[in-house]
Amino acid sequence: MLLRMSTLFLRTLRDDPADAEVPSHKLLVRAGYVRRTAPGIYTWLPLGMLVLRAVERVVREEMDAAGFQEVHFPALLPREPYEASNRWTEYGENLFRLKDRRGNDMLLGPTHEEMFTLLVKDLYSSYKDLPVSLYQIQTKYRDEARPRAGILRGREFVMKDSYSFDVDDAGLERSYQRHRDAYVRTFDRLGLPYVIVSAMSGAMGGSKSEEFLAPCESGEDTYVRSPGGYAANVEAVTTVAPPALPYDDVPAAHVEDTPDSATIETLVAVAAQRFPRRDWSAADTLKNVLVMLHHPDGSREPLAVGLPGDREVDLKRLEAVLSPAEVTPFGDADFAAYPALVKGYIGPGVLGERNASGIRYLVDPRVVAGTRWVTGADLAGKHVFDLVVGRDFVPDGTIEAAEVRPGDEAPDGSGPLELARGIEIGHIFQLGRKYADALELKVLDENGKQVVVTMGSYGLGVTRAVAAIAETTHDELGLCWPREVAPADVHLVATGKDDAVFAAAEKLAADLDAAGVRVLYDDRRAVSPGVKFKDSELIGVPTIVVVGKRLADGVVEVKDRRTGERQDLPVAIAAQHLTDLVAAGE
Amino acid sequence: MLLRMSTLFLRTLRDDPADAEVPSHKLLVRAGYVRRTAPGIYTWLPLGMLVLRAVERVVREEMDAAGFQEVHFPALLPREPYEASNRWTEYGENLFRLKDRRGNDMLLGPTHEEMFTLLVKDLYSSYKDLPVSLYQIQTKYRDEARPRAGILRGREFVMKDSYSFDVDDAGLERSYQRHRDAYVRTFDRLGLPYVIVSAMSGAMGGSKSEEFLAPCESGEDTYVRSPGGYAANVEAVTTVAPPALPYDDVPAAHVEDTPDSATIETLVAVAAQRFPRRDWSAADTLKNVLVMLHHPDGSREPLAVGLPGDREVDLKRLEAVLSPAEVTPFGDADFAAYPALVKGYIGPGVLGERNASGIRYLVDPRVVAGTRWVTGADLAGKHVFDLVVGRDFVPDGTIEAAEVRPGDEAPDGSGPLELARGIEIGHIFQLGRKYADALELKVLDENGKQVVVTMGSYGLGVTRAVAAIAETTHDELGLCWPREVAPADVHLVATGKDDAVFAAAEKLAADLDAAGVRVLYDDRRAVSPGVKFKDSELIGVPTIVVVGKRLADGVVEVKDRRTGERQDLPVAIAAQHLTDLVAAGE
Repeated sequence: MLLRMSTLFLRTLRDDPADAEVPSHKLLVRAGYVRRTAPGIYTWLPLGMLVLRAVERVVREEMDAAGFQEVHFPALLPREPYEASNRWTEYGENLFRLKDRRGNDMLLGPTHEEMFTLLVKDLYSSYKDLPVSLYQIQTKYRDEARPRAGILRGREFVMKDSYSFDVDDAGLERSYQRHRDAYVRTFDRLGLPYVIVSAMSGAMGGSKSEEFLAPCESGEDTYVRSPGGYAANVEAVTTVAPPALPYDDVPAAHVEDTPDSATIETLVAVAAQRFPRRDWSAADTLKNVLVMLHHPDGSREPLAVGLPGDREVDLKRLEAVLSPAEVTPFGDADFAAYPALVKGYIGPGVLGERNASGIRYLVDPRVVAGTRWVTGADLAGKHVFDLVVGRDFVPDGTIEAAEVRPGDEAPDGSGPLELARGIEIGHIFQLGRKYADALELKVLDENGKQVVVTMGSYGLGVTRAVAAIAETTHDELGLCWPREVAPADVHLVATGKDDAVFAAAEKLAADLDAAGVRVLYDDRRAVSPGVKFKDSELIGVPTIVVVGKRLADGVVEVKDRRTGERQDLPVAIAAQHLTDLVAAGE
Repeated sequence: MLLRMSTLFLRTLRDDPADAEVPSHKLLVRAGYVRRTAPGIYTWLPLGMLVLRAVERVVREEMDAAGFQEVHFPALLPREPYEASNRWTEYGENLFRLKDRRGNDMLLGPTHEEMFTLLVKDLYSSYKDLPVSLYQIQTKYRDEARPRAGILRGREFVMKDSYSFDVDDAGLERSYQRHRDAYVRTFDRLGLPYVIVSAMSGAMGGSKSEEFLAPCESGEDTYVRSPGGYAANVEAVTTVAPPALPYDDVPAAHVEDTPDSATIETLVAVAAQRFPRRDWSAADTLKNVLVMLHHPDGSREPLAVGLPGDREVDLKRLEAVLSPAEVTPFGDADFAAYPALVKGYIGPGVLGERNASGIRYLVDPRVVAGTRWVTGADLAGKHVFDLVVGRDFVPDGTIEAAEVRPGDEAPDGSGPLELARGIEIGHIFQLGRKYADALELKVLDENGKQVVVTMGSYGLGVTRAVAAIAETTHDELGLCWPREVAPADVHLVATGKDDAVFAAAEKLAADLDAAGVRVLYDDRRAVSPGVKFKDSELIGVPTIVVVGKRLADGVVEVKDRRTGERQDLPVAIAAQHLTDLVAAGE
């Protein structure tokens, strides 16, 4: 491959696009890889296509090597299968829906669980046919409420999605492990840093689940790690519940006047004033937060969450456990509908399905039997003290809604957690029988009995991987591609106006091309060396070769884009040296 | 590549699918290449993916080799650019339209002229940037009224579309020729028969245009050929107008009673009865056909077409010249709205924009000045005889609406036409400035003056090519792929129950795989030789190798799928022989 900058369809930009916030978005646009067409919808330019196709190639090679078989489903799909799985409704506004000319309901596929399930049902009928794993590399659609960060979260994007089909749980476990291994090999080859964390399966249903995250500041996902090796998406972190406490010596609950104490901060101050002998903190208070759930069927349900006053509700954790319901704040109209709720002084006295409000009341796992709390007395300006769980009230259950904080104990006891952010680039999980049940995918087992097939689902964001690689490998000068996915191996820059320089560069380009090295050759005559160097840093090909003034001494300059190391090379051996370097994957 | 039939996701079917009419559709479904998901929407199975990707690879290689640069546009597009070109309206019901969650109008791209135009406008501004040719291989959407023939005419399909951008007409001509050459190389490599015919550019606008057609009975397109080398899509055939005739000796027009002669046949009979000295035929009558045009803006317009009574109106030719208007028959309500029209006896006396009906009246080019006709007298039961064009009436213009018949003269005088049918697999045309004008794509020319860019548009149906290859290469036993696009090079069949046979086949498969030969290995133990042979014929890999009973004599059988030629080969040299055969492209 020999691309010439003089004819390449490319304009590098000096300025960041106005709507770009994260580095990958800025750089991919400025360096001419992608261009925005509509919110969350991008066009790939020639350099971007080369990277995108390289990522696709790596993914396809690793899927094929693992024995998974490639198929391709339409993006435009009929409603019925998604109706059967309830996702036509559950997906809510994230689904692009449309009607065809005959008035039939159709959708643009967000993922294809239903279609794969039906296809296997269509072709297979015996345990002898299983296991089978199928995949596709396909354009998907989600009408994101907040498309952001360029191609990191778009509304049209390319995904590799695989599905495994097994006759039993042990088979699913093996298929899951094979996919996990294939993902490890894929991301290793793609050359970006990643961590594997436990995850929730969310709206997909199912049980065991892990995410592959590319650690970086601009990532949308927060994950935790412990010194002992625990790693999880923050939504999947479970809280370590302390043991129940004895409460024989706790005095009876008593209601106190606590005027102007509708916030935790003011409440702690008032408590310290009233009972100065204790060392009060927000952790002694029980905060009750009300939210409204919106179920996919359109119904609404209030929910009260009780948690220690020193922690905030983490909305993403809350939404994850309540999915597919959506969560909105409790508004004034909602409060008006529940007169038992006294804003700022809400307590377990009225919360819970059997109490005055009738509102379901779930508490943080730390709120165990025997713990005592200061909390709302359901009267304006009053709180109740020494209210003991299990003695004075019993919540309807627990919920993982409180924020996870650095220093929290890992659920497996492997030490204190630290928090970091990352980009989700892969997600593998054991779906189980949700879709096979809904769509009646059964096979005959060894005994001639119909059994429901168990499935795994494995996603890998292909366009997102391009952005994640850019995001995790760039530097202050520009993009910095790993060789496996770079648009070229060598960015050859000819500088100056000397015909001999261009002749030598032309010959080197031809020699490299003949040797199978992919060359991006800056053959522009009217462009200054400074602009050419800047472009080469911005574009991010791993090896930059400059043919310029030093040619008079018989040398060209070779620079490693990542390390910045420079080396002079006799022009006579340059082609061979560079070919060897590329072959060695350096 | 080594695929095993024992694990391949495949079920061959004995029966044709109920909805299949054309051979490629039947065979691609029966042999497990594609499967229907919804009307006109198909899923590609593993064997189909291999062929589809092979076709894509050939197309991409030839586009790249020609110096065209690959980009990729979204399929989901905003309305505005298509509004500017008027195609949002013009495309009518063929366009899939939808709204996103914010209520914005969007569409699924049927072709991308607008987007390419805007992209070049976005990046380029000088004649020095041109010429440039860009292409994409992309999924497209058209809500066909009559999806048919499996993947031959689907509603979701893959197309390669290219666009060229030039500063002047001479440049466009060169770009057009480069694309034409690239298409010739592409279709040569794809191994299917094709013809290149002149075409109309239809709804796309523009001037010069050619189609690549794969000749076959089931094709939707009719084309013509002359002995002298003229070839055209039937919609593009122009009628040779005879020279004007003198009419000094033609008697004055005279109205005659012609009771019960509302059809051409009855009219000819009545004329023969009234004037037995002439030898009357349908060619002496002027038939006037009324249709209603529906313009994209919703307006309706009646149109009268006059043509010799021995020819029918060809609706596809009529629609082609009237596009983007749609044509429907003239209904009873329409007749009621024009009382001057006497059904069965309509004539030039009331037709034409200046006559009683006010209906535009266009005639076949053969209806030249001086020709005399028997035609409707606009009175029930009466016709007018010796009505002379140019003397007794002047139509509003001519129209190419009459059927083309075998034996008609080629417009370039190269002899009588013969008709044949074909599948459109490529369409190249000189768009000109239609989109550049609408979207204001201009560059500065050498004199610093703004000039509108001129464009070419070049389509190649990738999924359709798969079907066209199947359609034009199959035989009565099944598919019969050219090697370049076949799912494998060798279909290796092991027969019987002898372990030695399977061991030898296994070794041969491994040796071929190691030599880079793509092998589909039928390693199924419980399947009869008859079924295996049938499957191999149906699947259509070019070389079939059987390891069976003859292994005892040290030979395997090699069969050419297309010719049926068989050859015994010593097993010891089989791998080398087959590798050579594949390398030679045989």
